[in-house]
This record gives sequence, structure tokens and C-alpha cells, in this order.
Amino acid sequence: LVRLLHGRERELRDCHGIQFHVTGIASRRLGWIADPAGLSVSLLDSAAVSARPPAASRDLTNVRDWLRVARADVLFEATSLNVENGQPARDHIRAALLGGAHAITANKGPVVHAYRELRDLAKNAGRQFLFESAVMDGVPIFSLFRDNLPVLHLRGFRGILNSTTNIILSEMEAGSSFAASLAKAQALGVAETDASYDIDGWDAAVKVAALATVLMGIPTTPDRISRQGIRELSADAMRAAKQSGRRYKLVCRAERVGDAVEARVQPEILPSTDPMAQLDGSSSIICFETDIFPNLVITENNPGLDATAYGMLADFVRAAKSDPRSDHTRLPNRPRQA
Amino acid sequence: LVRLLHGRERELRDCHGIQFHVTGIASRRLGWIADPAGLSVSLLDSAAVSARPPAASRDLTNVRDWLRVARADVLFEATSLNVENGQPARDHIRAALLGGAHAITANKGPVVHAYRELRDLAKNAGRQFLFESAVMDGVPIFSLFRDNLPVLHLRGFRGILNSTTNIILSEMEAGSSFAASLAKAQALGVAETDASYDIDGWDAAVKVAALATVLMGIPTTPDRISRQGIRELSADAMRAAKQSGRRYKLVCRAERVGDAVEARVQPEILPSTDPMAQLDGSSSIICFETDIFPNLVITENNPGLDATAYGMLADFVRAAKSDPRSDHTRLPNRPRQA
Repeated sequence: LVRLLHGRERELRDCHGIQFHVTGIASRRLGWIADPAGLSVSLLDSAAVSARPPAASRDLTNVRDWLRVARADVLFEATSLNVENGQPARDHIRAALLGGAHAITANKGPVVHAYRELRDLAKNAGRQFLFESAVMDGVPIFSLFRDNLPVLHLRGFRGILNSTTNIILSEMEAGSSFAASLAKAQALGVAETDASYDIDGWDAAVKVAALATVLMGIPTTPDRISRQGIRELSADAMRAAKQSGRRYKLVCRAERVGDAVEARVQPEILPSTDPMAQLDGSSSIICFETDIFPNLVITENNPGLDATAYGMLADFVRAAKSDPRSDHTRLPNRPRQA
Repeated sequence: LVRLLHGRERELRDCHGIQFHVTGIASRRLGWIADPAGLSVSLLDSAAVSARPPAASRDLTNVRDWLRVARADVLFEATSLNVENGQPARDHIRAALLGGAHAITANKGPVVHAYRELRDLAKNAGRQFLFESAVMDGVPIFSLFRDNLPVLHLRGFRGILNSTTNIILSEMEAGSSFAASLAKAQALGVAETDASYDIDGWDAAVKVAALATVLMGIPTTPDRISRQGIRELSADAMRAAKQSGRRYKLVCRAERVGDAVEARVQPEILPSTDPMAQLDGSSSIICFETDIFPNLVITENNPGLDATAYGMLADFVRAAKSDPRSDHTRLPNRPRQA
């Protein structure tokens, strides 16, 4: 994200009137680091900053103090997924919004566990709570529906939303063992921190819950999604399916039924004519059923390594442009701080 | 469009704070009809309005007078395609913007022949020039790039963007003659007013030119697109291709080369594994190559009859929400007039 922000610095300024300084970074490795005058990001790459933290960082031990010292206008939240309650991302986002900063997350946990709370908190604070990177990397799914498909009714969707299992299934079809296939997905850097989240369908279920919660307006937690992972699929069954022109895929489905949503994540055998059957590697696909477009499909093939960071960058542009404190039609007097 | 507007009237008001009256209609059949107090739209269906036009409509003979009498805040422009110069849509849109109305069109002619002029005119007038329905019915392609993919670089695209030829090719593969296949496309109501625009690739070329002009920022007129239609394809060749697992499709391609765009529309034989090969009927597909998403695909399968009208409705919501004369966060004091 930092690389991408700096790579697009000139375009952000020239095309969108947005300038920024990075005034705080917090990570397990670096601890709480903040300097309202701006951090030299080249230092962060070499981790030199952790050896000699800015004076303003002394004694920082929690997110509220860190945000206050950083004087942040925008928080980028990128902790890893917690399926049970969306913490600590949920508290980080709350702290940012209460402290007057926009909150941008790539984490779907807070979306499924606290969407309405955080949305309303952001609204009351006049700030943005944005999470485009939570599903399908940075492909603008949430903003498409929010900004560009008004008074449209989403009846349901189906798709393949977890890359790790998709890579594993492709590898097993080709003859690899489950363990070797998982190792490959991890080597590619797409597996979640806890790979069982992927394999047992949790990651996909949380994505389905996030989409149902936000796009269908039906609060849905992952435990309410019927869920079956790929642990029990045998390589023999997969190769046999492939030989008969069909493929196993971990398929997500959701359908509006009255005021509720019926959703499930499970392995399915798909005919080769199904567009979901052709998806390989780290690609994702989602097919929306709406009242105007009966079958609108978005496919993200082989996303680049920066696709998730890009979603956060796009959210940053949205937040800055919406901010009454900034005038994005001119160069701002005071640079945005992130 | 009128049916859709009235069908969503309550949602437009409750969710977006938008109210409207239809204050003018002009068509070959009805002539120039305007009433700033609002027209009863049920009359329009039965054409009774043409038998007894509102008093305010007397002596109207041109678009400027008609817009002035209608006191329109928004013009919906839906004349048919003129490949050579984008008229009369271009003049209609100019008149609307100069008269203080937002201009929304489903016509791609003015986009390829006058995009920068109309965009700048709209900007100076503080109004919107919107054309989401010009390509892929109402699927939000233009607004996706404009609103949701900031600082992204589009390197090129390929796709199938003309429904009439896609229907004809599918029918001919199945054994129908060219004439019978064309008659079927016309019966489905998807063929352009002049079907040769479809068959000779003009409709597809204008769409490619519109996408290159707006999304790639390179002004492109249809005569600069290398273009070959489907007139010379034989049914035998098509069936032979299908038997070998391949399909003829009228494929659009555009690629940025330096500061220019190289684009063409031509029949291609595609392998069955190409997602474009699987497209049937009135469906459309576009595959974008960008610097972040190497292959982002949007497929619109079997659009409903109201998909194009929906694109204009979505543009209407965009225009109304952008309008400093309206306060869409509350119910407006004065209803929007369209």
C-alpha cells in the first residue's frame, strides 16, 4: 500500500488534488510509531525506524494514543481475519472514527460483525467507513452497488471467492497431494494467516456474509452460512470429475428468501460450460442476479500482488473526495495525513 | 424509461430524496409536447396526448423552445445512432446543457463525435453529461472507471459488444440462413434501426471508439477503427468451426500504443476455452487489461428489456445527486423536472 501510494503520488495530486503524509505505522514488528510531521517511508522498508523511532512515538501503547499523536485523517486497517468477532479491527475502526479519521479496512471481520454500528458511527462523525478490499481484492464490488447501481434489487449471487482453495483444487486435479497443493498456495502468498480458515470454508463464508450484509441489507454472520470445506475431497474423485469434463470448485451461493438470506459454501461438481468451472489459480468470480440484470458476472483473473492495496488506495481517494475538510477541486492547503 | 421511473418513484424519493415530473416528451410520433406543470404519463402510452396536446405545446418546433417551455432540469436523449457525426443527439445535448439541464443519452454518436466539447460544456454549466447506456446497455462501465477505479491505467480491452451479430452468428451456427437469423434478431428488438450498422460492424466500432475516447482518454472516431462485419461469413464455415469446438464471434479489440489507440472490429475464430466464445444471444462481454487488474471481465448475460432504460435511470440519480440546486439528503422543496 505504501509503495502504491508513493507510486501514484503525483497522479493523486494532479488528478484528484490529494496530497498525503504517512504519519503513523503500527505493526507487530515495528510497534506503535507516529510522527505528525510525517515519517520517511524509505526508513520503514529497512526497518531502521524501529531501531530509532521518532520522538513522538515514545510511550505509545494503544491505538487511541497512536491515532491522536499521528493526527491521522485516515486509518488504513489491515489486521488479519478474526472470524468470531472481528477484533481487533473493529476496535481500531471505532477508535479512528471516534477520533475524526476515515477508516479503511481490508478486513472483512468488522464488516460481518459490526457493519451497521460502524456505518452509523461513520455517518454521525461525518467520516467514511470503507472496505472495498475485503472481497475480491480491490475489485470495486461494494462501491459498484453503492454508487452505480441505484434502486436495483439484488436477489442473490454465486461465485468463487477463496483463492487458496481454488489453487489447491487445481493442483490436486493435476495430481498433487493435498499437503503439496496447500504448500504451493502458501508459497504464492495468497493463503490466510491461518490456512484452516481457507480450507474449512471460513474465509469464503465470511465473504458471503459481508456481501449479504452490505449488498442485500441483511445482517449475516458467518455462523449462519451453511459451510463445508474441501478437507474431505479426495484427489481421485477430483481427477475422475475432471476426466468426465467436470470440476470440483468451492462454490459460494446466497439467495434472498423473504426478509432473510439463505447462503452456503460447499464443494460442487460443475459442468465445464459453467463460467465458474473455468476459474483457475488466484482468480475470483461472482455472478449477481438482480431485477434488471438477470446475470451480471464479474471475473478477476490472476490479480496482481497489489490488487488488495489498490482497493485501499481507491477507498482513500473516495474518503478524501468526500471530506468536507478538503477541497479536492483545488490543491488542499493542508495535506491529508494517513 | 418512463415505466421504470414510475415503478421506482417511491424508492427514488425514500432512498435518494429525488422527486420528478415528466414535463416534456418529443418523438417522431408525438411531436413536441411540453407542460411545465407535468404531463400525465398514462396518456402517453395511449397516445391520447398527441390528439389533445397541452396548451403549452402549441407552436413548439425545435428543441430549444421545447426545453424552455418544459423548464427541464434533465433531458433524456434517445435518438438513434448516426455514425457520421452524432447528430441530432449532439445538438439536443448542447441545447440541454446551454439551457441549464443535465443531459443523459443512450446514444453513443455524440460520445465519439463530441465527447470533450460536451464534457467541457457540462462542466462549465455545472451540469452533467452522462451516457452509461451507450455501451453494454445499462451496465455501469463508464461510471465504474470514472468513480471507482481512480489512478488506474487502462492498457486495452477486448469484447463482444454487438448483440445483433451475436444472435445472427449463433443462429447460423445452428443452421439458419443469414436472412432468417437477421429476422430473428429484429424480432427480438435488439437490432439497430438500420441493421447494416450492426452487420457491417459500425455499432461495435462506435462502441469501441466511445470506450477508447472516454476510458483511455484518446479521442477516437469510428472511421479510425479497422472494421470488418459478418456479411461475408458463410454458414458452412461457421458450422465447421463449431464442429471443431471453435466459434466465430465479432470481436472488438483496442490497445494503447504510445499516445494512440489501435483498435479493430472483426470476425474471429475463438477456441471454446475463451470466455468470449461462450457468449450467446443478446449477452455482452468486455475484458479489461489494466496495470492493477491484468484481466478484469464483466459479462452481461441475457439483459432484460429495461436494461438500457435502467442505465438512464441510474444516470438520472447521479445527475440529481450532483446537482447543487437539489439537496438529496432531504426531500427537495421543488421536484426535479425531466
